Amino acid sequence: MLRIGVNGYGTIGKRVADAVAEMPDMELVGVSKSRPNHTADAARRRGYAVYAPEERHDDFEAASIPAAGVVEDLIADSEIVVDATPAGMGAQYRPVYAEHDTPAIFQGGESAEVAETSFTAPANYEEAIGQQYVRIVSCNTTGLNRTFAPLIEAYGIERADVTLVRCRGDHAVIKPDPTTLPSHHGPDALEVLPEIGEIQTMGMKVPTIRHHVHSLTVTLNDSPDAAAVRDLLSEQSRIHVIPEQLGIESGWDLQEYALDRGRDRMNLYENQIWGESITTNDEHLSLFQSIHRESDVVPENVDAIRAIAGTADAAESIERTNEALGIDTV
Amino acid sequence: MLRIGVNGYGTIGKRVADAVAEMPDMELVGVSKSRPNHTADAARRRGYAVYAPEERHDDFEAASIPAAGVVEDLIADSEIVVDATPAGMGAQYRPVYAEHDTPAIFQGGESAEVAETSFTAPANYEEAIGQQYVRIVSCNTTGLNRTFAPLIEAYGIERADVTLVRCRGDHAVIKPDPTTLPSHHGPDALEVLPEIGEIQTMGMKVPTIRHHVHSLTVTLNDSPDAAAVRDLLSEQSRIHVIPEQLGIESGWDLQEYALDRGRDRMNLYENQIWGESITTNDEHLSLFQSIHRESDVVPENVDAIRAIAGTADAAESIERTNEALGIDTV
Repeated sequence: MLRIGVNGYGTIGKRVADAVAEMPDMELVGVSKSRPNHTADAARRRGYAVYAPEERHDDFEAASIPAAGVVEDLIADSEIVVDATPAGMGAQYRPVYAEHDTPAIFQGGESAEVAETSFTAPANYEEAIGQQYVRIVSCNTTGLNRTFAPLIEAYGIERADVTLVRCRGDHAVIKPDPTTLPSHHGPDALEVLPEIGEIQTMGMKVPTIRHHVHSLTVTLNDSPDAAAVRDLLSEQSRIHVIPEQLGIESGWDLQEYALDRGRDRMNLYENQIWGESITTNDEHLSLFQSIHRESDVVPENVDAIRAIAGTADAAESIERTNEALGIDTV
Repeated sequence: MLRIGVNGYGTIGKRVADAVAEMPDMELVGVSKSRPNHTADAARRRGYAVYAPEERHDDFEAASIPAAGVVEDLIADSEIVVDATPAGMGAQYRPVYAEHDTPAIFQGGESAEVAETSFTAPANYEEAIGQQYVRIVSCNTTGLNRTFAPLIEAYGIERADVTLVRCRGDHAVIKPDPTTLPSHHGPDALEVLPEIGEIQTMGMKVPTIRHHVHSLTVTLNDSPDAAAVRDLLSEQSRIHVIPEQLGIESGWDLQEYALDRGRDRMNLYENQIWGESITTNDEHLSLFQSIHRESDVVPENVDAIRAIAGTADAAESIERTNEALGIDTV
């Protein structure tokens, strides 16, 4: 049993903690939370040991959420820590992980230099085996890499052009973000999959929630027909090609579908590709995909744990993770 | 065991079906769905018998969602039907229910005349006992009645002034809706609780989802202090007075809290009243409450079933419903 700590219990951390708790080969030591608010209360109700910052330990006691210890206790007691602290704070924690000789998994909000390997399980699992520090790329980059990896293997990619329309804008307007190009997603994807060759990524933000939508045009080294590409993508376990007859038209429908399916915390771990959008013109492939920003990196974090520990190869780890999380069940 | 059919499997119908399936004294015969889309697919995955309109029966077969029968079969096989069809369609179905001598529960989208009684369980359960047709008032009116009922009992109400800021606007603007006053909520609340005396309700729509927010000022026949009112409201089983220290600031936090608590389909059945908003100035009481538009009427539908069947009094039914749905558990 791998003893895993989750440092930071926000959008990603809470879901990684749930996933770790579901894995038969892992034990969740606990989670850290900076304040004794409703999220900490719900963690306690889920039965998780909650660790507090040293200076706030008494506040947790006062809020009837007794802390299991301080954050350094969590790091000391864990074989591997998943760092899900706010962007940039992971780099600050790295010396603490080093002091305790605890391997750590960082998220995409950290710069690539924080880790030896940037990671997407179906793309480059092997590179993370036995490493001390691994970084999961952001939700959007994870979603791109999952789609690129099988295309590279089947056809080769010459170039990719991607527009990422991202949820959680600040105002009721469309906002190019950043206005300089590329967005971080292109360079990040190349960290994991240099085989992409060239990539341009352009980001925008709109005032919506939970789901991003990407429009992709990929220039392949081959000219498959759309049906062949659709079959290829449908075979990938972390991609769901949405059948047209399900009538899923928007992120709203995707949320309802996740709830209807009984997915915990509304999680949709898989890239959601609109089947009818898959189009080829000679070597150019275009499609729309939606990414659930809160959960698509969760299975990648779990796989990174096994890669660091060296307890499974890519296929074994992905299968175990998928099975425990209910991914790819029909 | 009461054999219950749910006609219409949209936002409300799906949640009522789930709730009925959870009740130890009820059996869900099945649900009707107009099209074999993702919602129907998820109903099948939940193990519900799906009934189709006669003219679309074959479409369901073709979509691998075999229908258990046509809608009239569902009505004939059920002791009581919950009508959760789109607004106005319930009145069209009423003659069909009459033909089969099947009592029916309608939703707030129908006019008051469709039923003998408009209903909110903690307010007027007794009036529905043994009736053939009962109408659950809309989510907003349900939320108002739950707050008014204990205030009437404890203090008496002279007048209520309510602004309802409603989610699901069409554009990124604030829209008074309707511009004529009152909105339907005031007259509907009076159908259930004539003791309110006078009420003015003013509705707006804004482009947000799932949760409405009400600002209420109620003129009481007494002048309690705020702490006493807070205690009174905290004792009501379908009201959650939010403690300030939970840090719930918006409908977003409420959604997260529902997910964190593991509530199926993100349901928050209880009125959510911000504790720190409860304020009194002599006989005037003001507060903010949030209503989850998708689920707050669900326990009311379940209680209306028992009222029609005459199998429980108000207190027994409310307790059974609350227990099965996890309402009021600490």
